[in-house]
Amino acid sequence: MSSRSRPVPFTADDYRARMTRAAETAAEAGLAGVLVAPGPDLVYLTGYQPVNTERLTVLVLTAGQDPVLVVPTLEAPDAEKAVGAPALTLRDWTDGKDPYAVTAPLLDDAGRFGISDNAWAMHLLGLQRTLPGTSYVSLTEALPMLRAVKDTHELERLAAAGAAADATYEEILKVRFSGRKETEIAAELAELLKKFGHSQVDFTVVGSGPNGANPHHEAGDRTIERGDMVVLDFGGLKHGYGSDTSRTVHVGEPTAEEQRVHDIVREAQEAGCEAVRPGVACQEIDRAARAVITEFGYGERFIHRTGHGIGVTTHEPPYMIEGEEQPLVPGMCFSVEPGIYLPGRFGVRIEDIVTVTEDGGRRLNSTARELAIVE
Amino acid sequence: MSSRSRPVPFTADDYRARMTRAAETAAEAGLAGVLVAPGPDLVYLTGYQPVNTERLTVLVLTAGQDPVLVVPTLEAPDAEKAVGAPALTLRDWTDGKDPYAVTAPLLDDAGRFGISDNAWAMHLLGLQRTLPGTSYVSLTEALPMLRAVKDTHELERLAAAGAAADATYEEILKVRFSGRKETEIAAELAELLKKFGHSQVDFTVVGSGPNGANPHHEAGDRTIERGDMVVLDFGGLKHGYGSDTSRTVHVGEPTAEEQRVHDIVREAQEAGCEAVRPGVACQEIDRAARAVITEFGYGERFIHRTGHGIGVTTHEPPYMIEGEEQPLVPGMCFSVEPGIYLPGRFGVRIEDIVTVTEDGGRRLNSTARELAIVE
Repeated sequence: MSSRSRPVPFTADDYRARMTRAAETAAEAGLAGVLVAPGPDLVYLTGYQPVNTERLTVLVLTAGQDPVLVVPTLEAPDAEKAVGAPALTLRDWTDGKDPYAVTAPLLDDAGRFGISDNAWAMHLLGLQRTLPGTSYVSLTEALPMLRAVKDTHELERLAAAGAAADATYEEILKVRFSGRKETEIAAELAELLKKFGHSQVDFTVVGSGPNGANPHHEAGDRTIERGDMVVLDFGGLKHGYGSDTSRTVHVGEPTAEEQRVHDIVREAQEAGCEAVRPGVACQEIDRAARAVITEFGYGERFIHRTGHGIGVTTHEPPYMIEGEEQPLVPGMCFSVEPGIYLPGRFGVRIEDIVTVTEDGGRRLNSTARELAIVE
Repeated sequence: MSSRSRPVPFTADDYRARMTRAAETAAEAGLAGVLVAPGPDLVYLTGYQPVNTERLTVLVLTAGQDPVLVVPTLEAPDAEKAVGAPALTLRDWTDGKDPYAVTAPLLDDAGRFGISDNAWAMHLLGLQRTLPGTSYVSLTEALPMLRAVKDTHELERLAAAGAAADATYEEILKVRFSGRKETEIAAELAELLKKFGHSQVDFTVVGSGPNGANPHHEAGDRTIERGDMVVLDFGGLKHGYGSDTSRTVHVGEPTAEEQRVHDIVREAQEAGCEAVRPGVACQEIDRAARAVITEFGYGERFIHRTGHGIGVTTHEPPYMIEGEEQPLVPGMCFSVEPGIYLPGRFGVRIEDIVTVTEDGGRRLNSTARELAIVE
């Protein structure tokens, strides 16, 4: 299959089914409805992708009622073109009018609503003021599973994005690292992701030497040298679904300590992936990976959670973190990405996307996890 | 002066002064403090520009106390590098901890706080839950002037961005429009903005023929033809400050009606700019422009507000709209951009950025506003 072949497009019926399920799940959770802001929730539910601004756009989902999308009048023509538009009713408001007053009649004025995590505080405050009897809870808290379980068509897209990220890694192994700036390698990663079908590049981390010890370092002016460990972490969207993979490479031969730290992270990542199966709590994935790193004495140097969900974004619930008791369900997709970070020296991180199957887990990335030596 | 010359960088003292002024203004407005989310408010106050995510980052400003920036631990190294970092204290929280519990001791538990418009609803709900005695108001409502009045260094940057947008317009007039897709012209606008020093292109609207009648149309596959009106509206950031200008051009000679509609919009835009002076309410700018269009019978076809502020974003308060009674103050900068939209036929919009001076207004765009004929 060509990496450029397009998946079957989602239809208005697909979006209608998602909206119906969201409204029903919300009702089962005791909510009066769901308020969806521009961003990944709205893309997932309607296919509509406006910018999230001070002008209120909100999808109102209530069990047993048709979905209503409140939009600024001048964005209505764009909203009408969304693939999911036939499955909802548009209600527009004009500049100068109070958009919360337009939204209020759609809501139970004593109801509790789930609201998109990324809805603007300004809009939440507008709703709270207009309907003081209502209460709100973030969608991640109220309906963490809303986008978490992927259907077959979504899994196909995630697998294709993962394959494109893998192809990117295979290609970057062939380039020269030593003597070049991190930003140059990052630019090549971005080009490769696009070459292999990504429409959007979200991040291209190149953390060489001491920069690799900051898990949030992106790519800087540092010139990569022989002897450097280099953390590579890159991803974006292909056909609307995300990729995210990390490998740590070494320029020339590693020291025994570097090899050992890499081996520990690889074993931790393997343990995290092996722990994946339906019914296991998210936190167990974190515990499984962390236990290995802690056992080898680097527990204090693994300073982030083990993973995050992926779907229409590269970074979303569920989170593989201590305290997250959500059980895994077949179709969930998330990263398993433990790391060890030695301040001022180097870092190692290895990351694959894993999907939960009926009886275990399946990686959507398949490049070698052994420490690769680059030039 | 070269369009590539860099302005004098802002210093930690600049950011300290801005944070102090924000905290004092908030106290004068009866607020216990200001909570600033990643985005333009945080850039303006600290120079720090992280991504706004589900991981809480919030700047807490309280009159008489040092500013505190709450950040995820793994983003702390980046935060420390911000130019404004020496003027604040970092307080970090680690994945798995409750970030609202970390923030709560910094807040008066019975206080009313201004919060960035674009703070995530999820974070606002977390604060409301942790400190049920607190209340919140959006910064645009509470402190609409927070970023609205620009100092000399900011005005220099806005003028430079405007000059770059003007140079872009002059160049685009030289290209062939007929027979080419809107997206091609849009790509050239983006290239020109970058050529003239923009680091970020926010929008490149090319609305030809009937597409021009949708003020939110961006650029599509339509092939521009002889006889088309074409709305051009483009801008972005140069040295961190925004440009935004619109001109409507015609491919070949216009009809009498097209020329007349353009003349009306030009007169309306002139009237809006002429109305600018200190002490006048924002809504008066809208009224002045709208009165001209209404007088000529097109009032129903001017379907958006007359303007919006500009600064570290291309789109911010204050808004030139009926109901906005905020008086203009020297140093404010905003667009004046009336339009007429004839559905299915064509649209016209003319836009300049204007800054309020001691005794009137001064345009930061200076290209001809007469209807230009293109090939």
